[in-house]
Amino acid sequence: MNGYIHVYTGNGKGKTTAALGLALRAAGAGKKVYFAQFIKGKNYSEIEILQKNIFNITIKQYGLGCFIIKQPSPQDIKAAQKGLAEVSLIIKSGKYDVVVLDEANIAVYYNLFTVEKLIKTILNKKKETEVIITGRYAPDKLIEIADLVTEMKEIKHYYNEGVEARKGIEF
Amino acid sequence: MNGYIHVYTGNGKGKTTAALGLALRAAGAGKKVYFAQFIKGKNYSEIEILQKNIFNITIKQYGLGCFIIKQPSPQDIKAAQKGLAEVSLIIKSGKYDVVVLDEANIAVYYNLFTVEKLIKTILNKKKETEVIITGRYAPDKLIEIADLVTEMKEIKHYYNEGVEARKGIEF
Repeated sequence: MNGYIHVYTGNGKGKTTAALGLALRAAGAGKKVYFAQFIKGKNYSEIEILQKNIFNITIKQYGLGCFIIKQPSPQDIKAAQKGLAEVSLIIKSGKYDVVVLDEANIAVYYNLFTVEKLIKTILNKKKETEVIITGRYAPDKLIEIADLVTEMKEIKHYYNEGVEARKGIEF
Repeated sequence: MNGYIHVYTGNGKGKTTAALGLALRAAGAGKKVYFAQFIKGKNYSEIEILQKNIFNITIKQYGLGCFIIKQPSPQDIKAAQKGLAEVSLIIKSGKYDVVVLDEANIAVYYNLFTVEKLIKTILNKKKETEVIITGRYAPDKLIEIADLVTEMKEIKHYYNEGVEARKGIEF
């Protein structure tokens, strides 16, 4: 069975959760999933549940937390590049049926690594491997090589009404 | 903590998976989740894994399978209306922190129940309950009462290249 390259992008809520849901569905079908989170490095509820190893989903974070409001530090860059190198080996190995690169678009957007390096990593996949990339600002070059692209478009968001991010819903 | 009403709609991939991912995240934070699937009534991989009861997620289907290519039968209508009545009690009870009505928009689109009944069901929620509705063709009246709406917009889809739905990825 051929595997494909998915991109979930746009400014609306639902990108990481779509990747999470896909991971859960794949695990439900007996597939082995690697879920890499760039940028993120704090406690997300999905980390807590997935680290219990109740399914075939391995999750690992390659970020120091959210720097979106400030500039990335050399440590942020190092963490992301180390992550991409690790995920590159994971993808090449063919040991996982589904590999998720959560927020990799944001890593490119903030110049933590180049889109060329990201694409090279993805294209090293075995024919059967499914690769999922999430994050706002998907670069055009990535969209070009993807088989499926969904733009999550914000029509309405309670953030605009002053609601803050809540545990179990946003993280 | 206030709960909000989310709608995930549009023609792109990622609506049900976003709801699934949100359910997983909520469960990771110790929340209790009820996941109702309208229309769907065949084996989805998410059903297989969630029915193992490894988390606080209850999943139930109120459909006979996919009728999208033909017309809904009286049995389809009965199943959906029974489902809405059941979910209505679930929402009213306040026993679940998060209630998902997967494909409820499609149920309205095919006149299995009215948008007015769907909205009445949702608005009966306790202040703290989070309600998630998915499916293409979200009715305007539903968008009006929602706090968060994301349109999943198809930019590219491998279906258009003749790829068929695959177990563990699409179902």
